[in-house]
Amino acid sequence: MNATVGAIDANAEALLGWCRRAHLQRAHLVLLPEMALTGYPVEDLALRQTFVTASVTAAHAFARRLADEGMGELVVVLGYLDRTADALAPGRHTPAPQNKAAVLHHGKVVGSYAKHFLPNYGVFDEFRYFLPGTDLLVVRVRGVDVAVAICEDLWREGGPVSAAAQAQAGLLAVINASPYEANKDDVRGELATRRSREAGCPLAYVNLVGGQDELVFDGDSMIAQPDGTILLRGPQFVEDLLVADLDLAAATAGLESVPTPGASGLSVSRVMISEAGEPPAEQIEPVKYHKLDDHEEIYTALVLGLRDYCRKNGIADVWLGVSGGIDSTLVATIAADALGAEHVFGISNPGVHSSEHSKSDAADLASRTGINFSTVPIAPIVAAFEDQLDLDGVAAENLQARVRGVIWMAQSNQHGPSIVLANGNKSELAVGYSTIYGDAVGGFAPIKDVPKTQVWALSRWRNAEAVRRGEAPPIPESSITKEPSAELRPGQKDTDSLPSYEVLDAILVDYVESDLGMDEMVERGYDRELVRKVVRLVDAAEYKRRQYPPGTKISFKAFGRDRRLPITNGWREAPLAEPDT
Amino acid sequence: MNATVGAIDANAEALLGWCRRAHLQRAHLVLLPEMALTGYPVEDLALRQTFVTASVTAAHAFARRLADEGMGELVVVLGYLDRTADALAPGRHTPAPQNKAAVLHHGKVVGSYAKHFLPNYGVFDEFRYFLPGTDLLVVRVRGVDVAVAICEDLWREGGPVSAAAQAQAGLLAVINASPYEANKDDVRGELATRRSREAGCPLAYVNLVGGQDELVFDGDSMIAQPDGTILLRGPQFVEDLLVADLDLAAATAGLESVPTPGASGLSVSRVMISEAGEPPAEQIEPVKYHKLDDHEEIYTALVLGLRDYCRKNGIADVWLGVSGGIDSTLVATIAADALGAEHVFGISNPGVHSSEHSKSDAADLASRTGINFSTVPIAPIVAAFEDQLDLDGVAAENLQARVRGVIWMAQSNQHGPSIVLANGNKSELAVGYSTIYGDAVGGFAPIKDVPKTQVWALSRWRNAEAVRRGEAPPIPESSITKEPSAELRPGQKDTDSLPSYEVLDAILVDYVESDLGMDEMVERGYDRELVRKVVRLVDAAEYKRRQYPPGTKISFKAFGRDRRLPITNGWREAPLAEPDT
Repeated sequence: MNATVGAIDANAEALLGWCRRAHLQRAHLVLLPEMALTGYPVEDLALRQTFVTASVTAAHAFARRLADEGMGELVVVLGYLDRTADALAPGRHTPAPQNKAAVLHHGKVVGSYAKHFLPNYGVFDEFRYFLPGTDLLVVRVRGVDVAVAICEDLWREGGPVSAAAQAQAGLLAVINASPYEANKDDVRGELATRRSREAGCPLAYVNLVGGQDELVFDGDSMIAQPDGTILLRGPQFVEDLLVADLDLAAATAGLESVPTPGASGLSVSRVMISEAGEPPAEQIEPVKYHKLDDHEEIYTALVLGLRDYCRKNGIADVWLGVSGGIDSTLVATIAADALGAEHVFGISNPGVHSSEHSKSDAADLASRTGINFSTVPIAPIVAAFEDQLDLDGVAAENLQARVRGVIWMAQSNQHGPSIVLANGNKSELAVGYSTIYGDAVGGFAPIKDVPKTQVWALSRWRNAEAVRRGEAPPIPESSITKEPSAELRPGQKDTDSLPSYEVLDAILVDYVESDLGMDEMVERGYDRELVRKVVRLVDAAEYKRRQYPPGTKISFKAFGRDRRLPITNGWREAPLAEPDT
Repeated sequence: MNATVGAIDANAEALLGWCRRAHLQRAHLVLLPEMALTGYPVEDLALRQTFVTASVTAAHAFARRLADEGMGELVVVLGYLDRTADALAPGRHTPAPQNKAAVLHHGKVVGSYAKHFLPNYGVFDEFRYFLPGTDLLVVRVRGVDVAVAICEDLWREGGPVSAAAQAQAGLLAVINASPYEANKDDVRGELATRRSREAGCPLAYVNLVGGQDELVFDGDSMIAQPDGTILLRGPQFVEDLLVADLDLAAATAGLESVPTPGASGLSVSRVMISEAGEPPAEQIEPVKYHKLDDHEEIYTALVLGLRDYCRKNGIADVWLGVSGGIDSTLVATIAADALGAEHVFGISNPGVHSSEHSKSDAADLASRTGINFSTVPIAPIVAAFEDQLDLDGVAAENLQARVRGVIWMAQSNQHGPSIVLANGNKSELAVGYSTIYGDAVGGFAPIKDVPKTQVWALSRWRNAEAVRRGEAPPIPESSITKEPSAELRPGQKDTDSLPSYEVLDAILVDYVESDLGMDEMVERGYDRELVRKVVRLVDAAEYKRRQYPPGTKISFKAFGRDRRLPITNGWREAPLAEPDT
């Protein structure tokens, strides 16, 4: 399901709808994702006592609602935010929050489990918020012992998975808020089957769907089995109810509620819910969705990331500069796919250095996609500034970009609720090839985490997909094939200041994603002077990147939440291997 | 000492200078601050293997340099970044970094201590980077057992302080990187004496000085004694060498190097450096610096924060709009104090709604402070935009602010290396009373964390201080007394959209700093409708705040690193207590 952070009432209503559908399908046990009630990540909302209270209250109300609607027999595992009874949050005078799963039955919360392993790397900051749990929860449902775990519990060795094995669980139920990154689905499937084997029982994995600021959750829920197979696999990026009949081992363990410490370091708490019942009259055939190919997967993530950012923030329309270049063309196409072409407003802002094709390709894009299109030339406005200011070089180039930014913002402010989209790609952001308050203007940057070489690949894929569907390709071919240029001075080309994007993107993978040092990069065959130049550009661009709008994360290490560097930073990778003279 | 994050060589050189001075004063033991070699906080630099290697290499080289320069007998405790021998950083394939203190003697690292308690709240993210240490280090220096601890170790109960007591340490040496916030010095003094009593020995506390992005370190180093007194206290915001002769208890404990676990949970590692020696011929009188009063302390923090941001980033000059209002006037005064008036460039940008006093007060400010001053009217440029765009209301107001922003950036780009300063105060930022890409333009925002009522108080203090020093007050009286207005439409006043700043700031303290809920605020006597309005403004302004430039933190909870909220956020405090109808 697709939760919105903070919107507890709306999330509860949506979750209830899914429970109703599950109930109609004769479900005995329903798993809802990690923190589905509050959305994920709640960040510092976890430290607001009123918010924690609202979450706890809503979880209990949810149990009562189920019973009131005749679903009291349904056992529901619900991810929510709770607090400890006594421990204080570090550095604060309030109870420590916990990331928990509540088990609901007969109108009550009959048991709860606090996440044991807290991720605090990459995009995750869970030690900032949560106190780890120390008890595994095992609930007996229709005579089967179901162990409950949350997300990171699955990614680490030992802990709750080992405890589930020791507790002889018949099913390991894992609720997740696991953000998308390219190819993570492959890792996740392998992980789920491995942990199923370690737990000695099937593993049901349920994940959120939807965009939340820079994160997008991709669903990809599944049931993995100890024999290494995946019985059921849900769709990516789409909400769905997945139903499976499982033939699970009957519980044999005692039901003593006194916790017994295991070798995993966790105690086990057991709750009796129901004894074994009749098997279902007919087995439901488990579904296995077709997995998206790599380009489709990334493109879908970008579309959903933008759509949810707009929808969840009450934004109807988007405005963007369309220059005929591939970046703005791809962004306009993503926006049309996300919001509908009628909600997308492209503005062409020709200046004195703009080429003919920049105008004609932009107009062509508009006619292909059906987006709104207007033209506001910048020359008279630029002249009004230059009447009063004596500018040349980069200052004069930036001025043109900033006049465009002011025009987009003015139109968006005048005709809102809307935002401007920033068109920058990851390669440009990495090396600081953009104008702050110019092309960097915007409320969201859809391709912020997409390297330039991938911008071209996704554009080609989108056109091919249109052909496959029997539609006209949205992206003008010349936008794909033309040489990249900012067109801020006569004859300017990106390669005047940068290496080819093929080379640049390869170096950026090594430096930004893999954190390699200068010598390691040179050993991989790159020219030392070139590597030094790129590294220096990347190191110097941190302030610009910090000011850039948020955009959907698709890589292992997106700029923003994933990679946190100081602005004031005297470290320079480059001089270490070869000091300046 | 004032370290720059990442600048290992420059930091080492500076630290060596302080060791030379200490050596000339016959020191036996020198304490240098937490992570003084790398600066603090290094953020994701800790995850770069080349950076960790550079830190470790530099720590060993530092020991050799000391010996080579004839200071081998000096025992130096140096804060630096290291890594574990075997454990991996969570979520990564590289060794886990540690925040450590190295003890240097006779050209070698003779012992090291890894911080035990890691802060992960407020501005701190140490669980993202560091593996906690589990061994207390005790070094015997001239027959005295010196226990070493790092910053947060002092702020928590038990742990290294208890272990130092159990180990019968004669001195507890605590190295720190403890950022400034108003009145923290009072807490720190009380804490140091309390921990000294718990440890049963004097406690030497040494802290960094200087600005690092949003943080400023205030020094305030001291020696606290078990009887509750403070023997020595250093200056605030200024580098200094503090020397004291201490008569410390001679060690009686055995020197077995096999670690023995204590009740604190830490093992104790002991290193023998030197036996008891002759006492010094004469005692040095310990200094106790005059403590700054509250306004002077905050003003000094703001000056140092801006000065170091510019100096450490290679920025010579700053440009800012000067409107005659109190915010830009105070920022210009801080900038003149930080950088020298000749490096400050004020631009007056009168528009059609600007008052006469906005021009005359700005000119008066320039003549009082000696900053550079120029005037660029915006009307012709605004007209050039409006020729092509049909704007009214907020869109037309924002346009004026953005034209100003483009002018400042153009001048800064043309005449750099320089940055624009954003003049916004904390009250405005809280409620979103600013124009993104307009008055929010800038590389640094000196009063970002200063509420409006404090802006006035600091202005009055600065003028009074000038009089005290026999100088002319820099701030025009009418800038202090006039009613605040953005002057973007005829007769506009801040109180058209906001309550008085006295009331607003009081509510913001409760909501932002104290995280109170609606009902709690109403119980404190505020009008429910007013609280609801303020809370809604604050909740809606998160995106604007994220895009604001960094600025020096002076409060418990500064916007930015301290308070991290999602942009997409369905939580509304206000409706909870009284649902909308």
